[in-house]
Amino acid sequence: MSQPRAPYEARASPGPCVERQLRSIDVRTSIATVSLSGSLTEKLTAAGRAGFDGVEIFENDLLASPLTPEEIRARTADLGLSIDLYQPMRDIEAVPEAEFARNLRRARHKFELMRRLGTDTVLVCSSVSPLAVDDDALAADQLRRLADLAQDFGMRVAYEALAWGRHVSTYDHAWSIVEAADHPALGTCLDSFHILARGGDPKGIEDIPGEKIFFLQLADAPLMAMDVLQWSRHYRCFPGQGGFDIAGFLGHVLRAGYRGPLSLEVFNDVFRQAEAGPTAVDARRSLLVLQEATGLAAPPAPVAATGVAFAELVTPDVEPVTALLGALGFTRRARHRSKPVDLWQHGEARVLVNTGPAARRDGTSLAAVGLESPDPAAASRRAESLLAPVLPRRRAPEDAPLDAVAAPDGTELFFCVTDRSGHPEPDGWTGDFVPVPHERLPQYVARIDHLALTQPWHQFDEAALFHRSVLGLSAQDSVDVADPYGLHRSRAVTNADGSVRIALGVGPAPTDEGARAQHIALATDDVVTAARRFREAGGRLLAMPANYYDDLAARYEFADGEPETYRELGILYDRDAEGEFRHCYTETVGRVFFELVQRDGGYRGYGAQNAPVRLAAQHLPRRPGR
Amino acid sequence: MSQPRAPYEARASPGPCVERQLRSIDVRTSIATVSLSGSLTEKLTAAGRAGFDGVEIFENDLLASPLTPEEIRARTADLGLSIDLYQPMRDIEAVPEAEFARNLRRARHKFELMRRLGTDTVLVCSSVSPLAVDDDALAADQLRRLADLAQDFGMRVAYEALAWGRHVSTYDHAWSIVEAADHPALGTCLDSFHILARGGDPKGIEDIPGEKIFFLQLADAPLMAMDVLQWSRHYRCFPGQGGFDIAGFLGHVLRAGYRGPLSLEVFNDVFRQAEAGPTAVDARRSLLVLQEATGLAAPPAPVAATGVAFAELVTPDVEPVTALLGALGFTRRARHRSKPVDLWQHGEARVLVNTGPAARRDGTSLAAVGLESPDPAAASRRAESLLAPVLPRRRAPEDAPLDAVAAPDGTELFFCVTDRSGHPEPDGWTGDFVPVPHERLPQYVARIDHLALTQPWHQFDEAALFHRSVLGLSAQDSVDVADPYGLHRSRAVTNADGSVRIALGVGPAPTDEGARAQHIALATDDVVTAARRFREAGGRLLAMPANYYDDLAARYEFADGEPETYRELGILYDRDAEGEFRHCYTETVGRVFFELVQRDGGYRGYGAQNAPVRLAAQHLPRRPGR
Repeated sequence: MSQPRAPYEARASPGPCVERQLRSIDVRTSIATVSLSGSLTEKLTAAGRAGFDGVEIFENDLLASPLTPEEIRARTADLGLSIDLYQPMRDIEAVPEAEFARNLRRARHKFELMRRLGTDTVLVCSSVSPLAVDDDALAADQLRRLADLAQDFGMRVAYEALAWGRHVSTYDHAWSIVEAADHPALGTCLDSFHILARGGDPKGIEDIPGEKIFFLQLADAPLMAMDVLQWSRHYRCFPGQGGFDIAGFLGHVLRAGYRGPLSLEVFNDVFRQAEAGPTAVDARRSLLVLQEATGLAAPPAPVAATGVAFAELVTPDVEPVTALLGALGFTRRARHRSKPVDLWQHGEARVLVNTGPAARRDGTSLAAVGLESPDPAAASRRAESLLAPVLPRRRAPEDAPLDAVAAPDGTELFFCVTDRSGHPEPDGWTGDFVPVPHERLPQYVARIDHLALTQPWHQFDEAALFHRSVLGLSAQDSVDVADPYGLHRSRAVTNADGSVRIALGVGPAPTDEGARAQHIALATDDVVTAARRFREAGGRLLAMPANYYDDLAARYEFADGEPETYRELGILYDRDAEGEFRHCYTETVGRVFFELVQRDGGYRGYGAQNAPVRLAAQHLPRRPGR
Repeated sequence: MSQPRAPYEARASPGPCVERQLRSIDVRTSIATVSLSGSLTEKLTAAGRAGFDGVEIFENDLLASPLTPEEIRARTADLGLSIDLYQPMRDIEAVPEAEFARNLRRARHKFELMRRLGTDTVLVCSSVSPLAVDDDALAADQLRRLADLAQDFGMRVAYEALAWGRHVSTYDHAWSIVEAADHPALGTCLDSFHILARGGDPKGIEDIPGEKIFFLQLADAPLMAMDVLQWSRHYRCFPGQGGFDIAGFLGHVLRAGYRGPLSLEVFNDVFRQAEAGPTAVDARRSLLVLQEATGLAAPPAPVAATGVAFAELVTPDVEPVTALLGALGFTRRARHRSKPVDLWQHGEARVLVNTGPAARRDGTSLAAVGLESPDPAAASRRAESLLAPVLPRRRAPEDAPLDAVAAPDGTELFFCVTDRSGHPEPDGWTGDFVPVPHERLPQYVARIDHLALTQPWHQFDEAALFHRSVLGLSAQDSVDVADPYGLHRSRAVTNADGSVRIALGVGPAPTDEGARAQHIALATDDVVTAARRFREAGGRLLAMPANYYDDLAARYEFADGEPETYRELGILYDRDAEGEFRHCYTETVGRVFFELVQRDGGYRGYGAQNAPVRLAAQHLPRRPGR
């Protein structure tokens, strides 16, 4: 069980060469219980399992818990967690004396409670009370008296400026009051959200003595121009998921000499609803990435994928899948030595069709992706160090040792090396496949252009951070796409040369079953020919409405007959500053459909502007004849 | 089928006594298809069924529709709808000549399309294009040339300032350009959101000649300090559901002499997901209320309820319900003459227990509320005029004719008169009940204090508007309440003396089954005695955590023993500027539980600050012994 520290014990002071020393600093990680969903017990369990060192206990979580403070103390200790902070005390300072007497009485109760909990630091937020006056000397005096009381209990007080505090709303103002109070049991608490949301310059943090920064709360947030209180209470997110420079912020705090825990305090409407376990893992991953960015930790370096080796479909009903692949010009090239898995290929696009037991669960779905990796083992070590679940492989003794992890949406990601042109490579995965005779067909698909994967509603932010940090991909901006039944969002993650592109999507609500679609986009340099061949081979293209083509003709000038061809085949068109994009869609099998895409002249998007039309078409009952 | 009007046909000009004339103005109502969910067909059907006169066709809805323009025209005509506007054309004006030539080409296509649709007015939004220059003369010149083209097609152009337009973002700026262009086929379009969101003074609208206001779009929005584009695209709502003074705004527009349609254009993430039918009804109700507020219509006056006559529980399993009522001191006083319905009563609190076939559907739930009405027939006429579904009554010939409507959540609302002290009143509902012998028990419940009804996730805004407009209640502010598994919201609607109080709640997500709870709060002047009697009679009170009481003792000074009593009984405590509130909860049967509440000294709330603790306790497994 953790013991309360002496409140005014001096913390290590930083030397001049802070950056070089950082690696050797033993940084503790912590999370506020308010960041997680569920009962206090669920929150603590999730934090412990995710590997946090400590927690902040949010008062309302304690009040609502049937556990006594002693039981909470024992539970956290069992989980390997310390209680780093009790929070918050509100509306304490700069109030009339009679009110302050009531506040001290309340504080005494809370210090007694904290003693039972085994924690020694309390957060005091700058007052929002209408009783508070704008008088720094009074605030300092009352905080000093609060600190006196704290000291009697072996406790310390961390005073924080709320961004919407009535009279104190900036960190330097809070610090100046703490400095004036000059009490060993009184320090300040810094919160990245409160400081960065106001657009304040965090550089001044370096002027605060590190030992007087009693606590550090970290939260990111998407950059939004909105009321700061609403922004804070509903939209905070974990570092790296929003728009603030949290690494830069943390650098200032470390240079000031702060050596306490890095603690996440995130109020977020979605996390409140999400399962606590995955959220806690997401949270700790965000801290690991932040520690890496600030030189506090050095996990194995990212190994960026260099291409898509394969996409794996699992299906309980193989006929519609193979019919679709056949019409798309894929041929069955090989079968797995020991599993019910076939390799279908067209150009460099490879699709595995797995009819094993996993297929029973969900119907036809895209269950796994093979990522071409220059060093699969290193990629796997990176993933594991960032808390990606490493998947056990049931394999025959002679199979290649494939490294695989699970993405937040459950997709299995394999790090692998593709043997090309019959020269098996040491780590090659294709060696596990036995070639089968196959027809030589005209090749009009070059490779997999991108994969589109719908994410669980509660894990959209997590998914982007996962793909960036674990897989070394870059995330593009999130875009809204209007489906007839609600707004979808989509965010692409890619590698530098665009040979790996994954579009992460999310539907409008947790309930939306229609938003579970996944698709595989195949690159071609002539989508018209590709579409015609597909149709001639018996494939069914998704028909697009005539009104779309009338609009296209209004917006762009095409060569004679071009729009008519697009209309006939259901080809959509987009253009950006760099180039053009032509694309069309197959029918859907289970959760999965295919797209044929032709990129010309450096077009970098995904045809998002056409997505509402495509989504509407996918809702229509299938029409005969196409 | 509607015929295009001549574009520059003069509209009736307003005389000096506009207000007195308004009642006689035949105002048409319209709705933009973007305000509703689904395919274009679904949207049109919903608008037609809700009784709108016309629609604005949002371009993307047309593009995504498989219907041809002629089919859309025929469909709208069948539904009794005209197409009042085609929208939007973007980025037309103040651009280099080559770009403008392309824009005219695009416009020609659109005018041809509009001819096929049978509509004569197009919305042009002020440009957001990076190509646009800040040159009003150029803008006026190009809009004049666009209007020339429109005129050739018998069309007219309504130019609107987007709040985030690149160079034109206010209505008076847009009007000055229209005025300078001076073309009969060019007018302006006013949008309440774009004008009010920027805090502009709408009074200047009266200086625009009414016949030059070609169109009027109405949208409300909650008052939020946020980026105006995001605010507009995601959070608009129907008039009366937000914070803008839409009636005042409309007054200016009518005084200017505008006599065109009142059209709703609402971009809202929730409405996009909700069923189109109820949303369209909600939308038209909002316009009816607005028409009433501006003197354009005079529906039957509201008849405010004067009390809660009864709450009706339906149950497939009567034993747990009657056991709970019995423990709460209710006695069975009467049975319905012809239906399987019993009347239970305690003080003036009446609960009907219905074991008829309706009970099978949902388990035990609060299915109906009787509202004491000074004039049930007038209340019903008011409700019907505001599109509340009037419920058919299957009744025996001798039963009193009860007027009932359905609330958005499906709750049946009866307007009724309670016969008191054995003097049957002409409209009395109790005359249908036959008294049964019953024990005389001590009476410690005075009446029903309030009812709490969880609303369907998509209909929270609609519910508040319904209760205000149809029932003549006032809505209080919405408050957030933290459940362990997500934020709930709650908004109370009340009559003037607080004898009718309904707390409308909504869970964090459409999926949340736990958020379907309903409860009946019973007023007592001594909650401690009431709780003890309930427990002595075998009732089970919801146990509250000890930590809550420790906190209570820290926050308030109580008489000796008081917190201990509360702790023993699970009584929660709150205080506001006016008074005190003590309350406790029973166990839950089906969807329903009871609350015992004691209000002292004018406390007006519902103990929202205790709700997180209560919600957490309701998630806990039931403990023995309470």
